[in-house]
Amino acid sequence: KKIVTLAGDGIGPEIMAAGLAVLAAVAPKINFAYTIEAKAFGGAAIDAAGHPLPDDTLAATQSADAILLAAIGGPQYNDAAVRPEQGLLALRKSLGLFANIRPVQIFEALKHLSPLKAEIIEGVDFVVVRELTGGIYFGEHTLNERTARDVNDYSYEEIERIIRIAFDIARGRGKKVTSVDKQNVLATSKLWRIVADEVAKEYPDVTLEHALVDSLAMKMITNPSDFDVIVTENLFGDILSDESSVLPGTLGVMPSASHAENGPSLYEPIHGSAPDIAGLGIANPISMILSVAMMLRDSFGETTGAAYIEHAVHQTLLAGVLTKDLGGQASLSDMTEAIIKHL
Amino acid sequence: KKIVTLAGDGIGPEIMAAGLAVLAAVAPKINFAYTIEAKAFGGAAIDAAGHPLPDDTLAATQSADAILLAAIGGPQYNDAAVRPEQGLLALRKSLGLFANIRPVQIFEALKHLSPLKAEIIEGVDFVVVRELTGGIYFGEHTLNERTARDVNDYSYEEIERIIRIAFDIARGRGKKVTSVDKQNVLATSKLWRIVADEVAKEYPDVTLEHALVDSLAMKMITNPSDFDVIVTENLFGDILSDESSVLPGTLGVMPSASHAENGPSLYEPIHGSAPDIAGLGIANPISMILSVAMMLRDSFGETTGAAYIEHAVHQTLLAGVLTKDLGGQASLSDMTEAIIKHL
Ligand SMILES: CC(C)[C@H](C(=O)O)[C@@H](O)C(=O)O
Ligand SMILES: CC(C)[C@H](C(=O)O)[C@@H](O)C(=O)O
Repeated sequence: KKIVTLAGDGIGPEIMAAGLAVLAAVAPKINFAYTIEAKAFGGAAIDAAGHPLPDDTLAATQSADAILLAAIGGPQYNDAAVRPEQGLLALRKSLGLFANIRPVQIFEALKHLSPLKAEIIEGVDFVVVRELTGGIYFGEHTLNERTARDVNDYSYEEIERIIRIAFDIARGRGKKVTSVDKQNVLATSKLWRIVADEVAKEYPDVTLEHALVDSLAMKMITNPSDFDVIVTENLFGDILSDESSVLPGTLGVMPSASHAENGPSLYEPIHGSAPDIAGLGIANPISMILSVAMMLRDSFGETTGAAYIEHAVHQTLLAGVLTKDLGGQASLSDMTEAIIKHL
Repeated sequence: KKIVTLAGDGIGPEIMAAGLAVLAAVAPKINFAYTIEAKAFGGAAIDAAGHPLPDDTLAATQSADAILLAAIGGPQYNDAAVRPEQGLLALRKSLGLFANIRPVQIFEALKHLSPLKAEIIEGVDFVVVRELTGGIYFGEHTLNERTARDVNDYSYEEIERIIRIAFDIARGRGKKVTSVDKQNVLATSKLWRIVADEVAKEYPDVTLEHALVDSLAMKMITNPSDFDVIVTENLFGDILSDESSVLPGTLGVMPSASHAENGPSLYEPIHGSAPDIAGLGIANPISMILSVAMMLRDSFGETTGAAYIEHAVHQTLLAGVLTKDLGGQASLSDMTEAIIKHL
């Protein structure tokens, strides 16, 4: 199994190393054989090759069985997002990564980090499913001196396949899908709702509810335990999935997966490259390590290996091994070693 | 002074009556003379005239000195938003109501309603300024059977005037503007940021910071006391202003104002028509009553009258007079009378 790693910028290389150390430790326990191919991406690739997504990086990802991405961007690139249309967005589009999956959960040991009252986050366990290769992100962008325009396009097929992913996930969990749109204003949302209702007919065992994005942005925080699978279009998903990190109160423990119809999936922490603490050895590697677990489960069917890692992370946190961002003193390597010990 | 009232649907008529009762009680204390012209709007207007915004309603609002809107929509209209493109959005566009203003504050007496921990909401006091007549709301909408498209347009002038409103408000408050966009993806956001930087030069006494909408959707909840004036485009403003109601934990105490370059402003509660409790006499009139206070201050320069009402609302809440949604037993008329008594 070929895994391509894109360590990127800032704390990216450090947390990637931590994720790979955990993978190396779990692999023999589950007889998982793999090779790693490290490639340049993001700011590091701009420095090395003048482009955030060099050709050989793209080629390597296309022939990979799975991709691990750590984090990109930094102040020296004068753009937090490192030319996303040539970098991250181009990568998503080239690989057809249309389905972004973000599980939202509260770790028992980290409850105190949430800005929300304990009774609000009790029982929170949902997944945000974001459409990732359509909508206003990939419509025409026109910037003139006195006017600007963005075009938001969706096709029936684009909506159908992401809604189907949401229903498939819900079927294996709480059997409820909340489809989010702005149906009272947008044509794309009107189509979205039509398609969601159509797909729902194939899943009589799953409940579909519709929500307007403005109202959902509120309810996701005030009533978070009402949700099981939240599915939405690209721009709303960008906003809502970041907003959902309010619930755990930290970006440091949230992994994500992005899937294509065919070809490799990509796994990455939801947080950024934290350039302010890069190289200090104090970054929190958990989002990256949990992304490795997602990879084992989703790309390689290694559910046992994934469960080992997730369990070890829980145990490590319960043992009070916490990095600075989680309110503790542990270094990146303290935490990585503790997780490996708990495997 | 001619005030046009649009009571609308659901609890709309009840809370409008409460708002007008408070206005009638405060008027003699400040020598404020006015006339009321009640007009049909929303579902009620569809029932009466077949259109959510009948011609004579539009004409009346156009010749008003200020407009009070309660709430519209209900299940019998088969669309929560009562054909917004012909109703609410047409009204905003016809009157040129480009600047929507929503103050976000925590009432001492209602702190327990917030889903957030006490230390998070300590000192929260900001204003969301939303552009209301541009962007994807008013671009072309195309709905075909297999595809759909929405167009998002902004001009320099449209951005400039709303940014200026934000700076003017900030100048009279905490002297900080947070401009929210998705500059790493959208052309309209690139223009937005250019204009914001340009306008900022005229306000050397006010600090401008830029934020990406995804990141702000998180920080507005985790660090709400960092903000003074948040300004953004129409769609982001729709999402963020509803999301901001998470902080007080209730929609029941949040007023809003919408201003034009010339012509009357419109004042309304941010909550909806609550059809489930319509006619029961238990609705919370505070958002409506505080909207009346905003009207007195912004449209008529009656700062004393506005302060009387706001103070009376505070006192009433502190006295423990709470409607059901606020955790109490008071009826709509109990609460309205208590507020009038505290004037
Ligand atoms: C960097 C940016 C283009 C990107 C997005 O908006 O998709 C990021 O915010 C994300 O969510 O991965
Ligand atoms: C009803 C709808 C069109 C409207 C909007 O999106 O502007 C509402 O959500 C609001 O915020 O006033």
